[in-house]
Amino acid sequence: MELTALKIQEFVEELASDSPAPGGGSVAALCGALGAALTSMVANLTVGKEKYRESWEIMEKIQRKAPELSREFLRLLQEDTSAFSTYMSALKMPKETEEEKSLRRERMQMGLKEASAVPLRTLRACRDLGELALPVVEKGNANAVTDGGTAGLLALAAGKAAAYNIRINLGGIRDEDFVTQTEKEVQELLAAIEARAEQIENLMKNAL
Amino acid sequence: MELTALKIQEFVEELASDSPAPGGGSVAALCGALGAALTSMVANLTVGKEKYRESWEIMEKIQRKAPELSREFLRLLQEDTSAFSTYMSALKMPKETEEEKSLRRERMQMGLKEASAVPLRTLRACRDLGELALPVVEKGNANAVTDGGTAGLLALAAGKAAAYNIRINLGGIRDEDFVTQTEKEVQELLAAIEARAEQIENLMKNAL
Repeated sequence: MELTALKIQEFVEELASDSPAPGGGSVAALCGALGAALTSMVANLTVGKEKYRESWEIMEKIQRKAPELSREFLRLLQEDTSAFSTYMSALKMPKETEEEKSLRRERMQMGLKEASAVPLRTLRACRDLGELALPVVEKGNANAVTDGGTAGLLALAAGKAAAYNIRINLGGIRDEDFVTQTEKEVQELLAAIEARAEQIENLMKNAL
Repeated sequence: MELTALKIQEFVEELASDSPAPGGGSVAALCGALGAALTSMVANLTVGKEKYRESWEIMEKIQRKAPELSREFLRLLQEDTSAFSTYMSALKMPKETEEEKSLRRERMQMGLKEASAVPLRTLRACRDLGELALPVVEKGNANAVTDGGTAGLLALAAGKAAAYNIRINLGGIRDEDFVTQTEKEVQELLAAIEARAEQIENLMKNAL
């Protein structure tokens, strides 16, 4: 099923169903795409407006970067659900003989690694979203400041949701080096996102 | 344009365009709908599982309430964009004569009140979402705990985004009683949502 081709209404219904995918990981990626689109919108509402001439250069950069970021998030929306299905297939493999058990364990480990690698890319993209949202709130069209602020909130929420999805999968992975290294990156990315989100929320308090 | 009939991909493109609506207000409502759908999903994955028999009663309540809440959020997704258009139409009214100016001012005030009333309903619905997400994380299927946690993060992000949209509109409203009363409700709702979100984040720290 191609998730981005679903209507909003259909996606919400699909999500609510008793199938575990799509779930929170794909929702995190979708929220990231919505945030990136909001930064595009504010940049588009700023470039060309004489009052904001000093912001044009940075907003033009955002006009280039935000659509790329949005596309990455939409790919991740799909890939998160696919990775989960890969893991579920491994779970359903036969486990009668020792050989079967061993193969199933190996495939499950591969599935868990993939299911943590996808939200890790979402988390990285959320860090990038925070980096775009800050200048949008600081220097973008003031009439659209709430849209930039919303992008900042989404970077944080989607980032934390991605971290949940990474960590629940790390819990089942036996490769300790992989777990340690991934957890370290998660902490660094979350710290960067939280710092940006706090700056943005403070700017919003002054603006409203 | 019926926004919930747009494909995910189309909605994201529409959002990114240089038209100010749909914007952050509709995105907040969409995130609320995604959160409500996630609580439905976890409830659906819990009811009927023998291990969670003690949670069935509360999860059945969530199975009834979450779809209603999701529908309310999807209505708000549409209404937020419509309310903005009403205000924009008022802005474009003629302002040559004193009579025209007075009529335009009156319509602008009505438009601003509507444009703050819609995100106020979104904020109330986010409070309700937080109330559903907490038991989902606490007592729902542990395999889906990250989905409940994501619903909690979305209640907070969407609630704060709705508050941004209320407050930017309150800034232009001359009816002081309306402004004071609305701001009071915003503060109470945000406090309730933040308290629930904090409880949920603490539960997630223990779970992961």
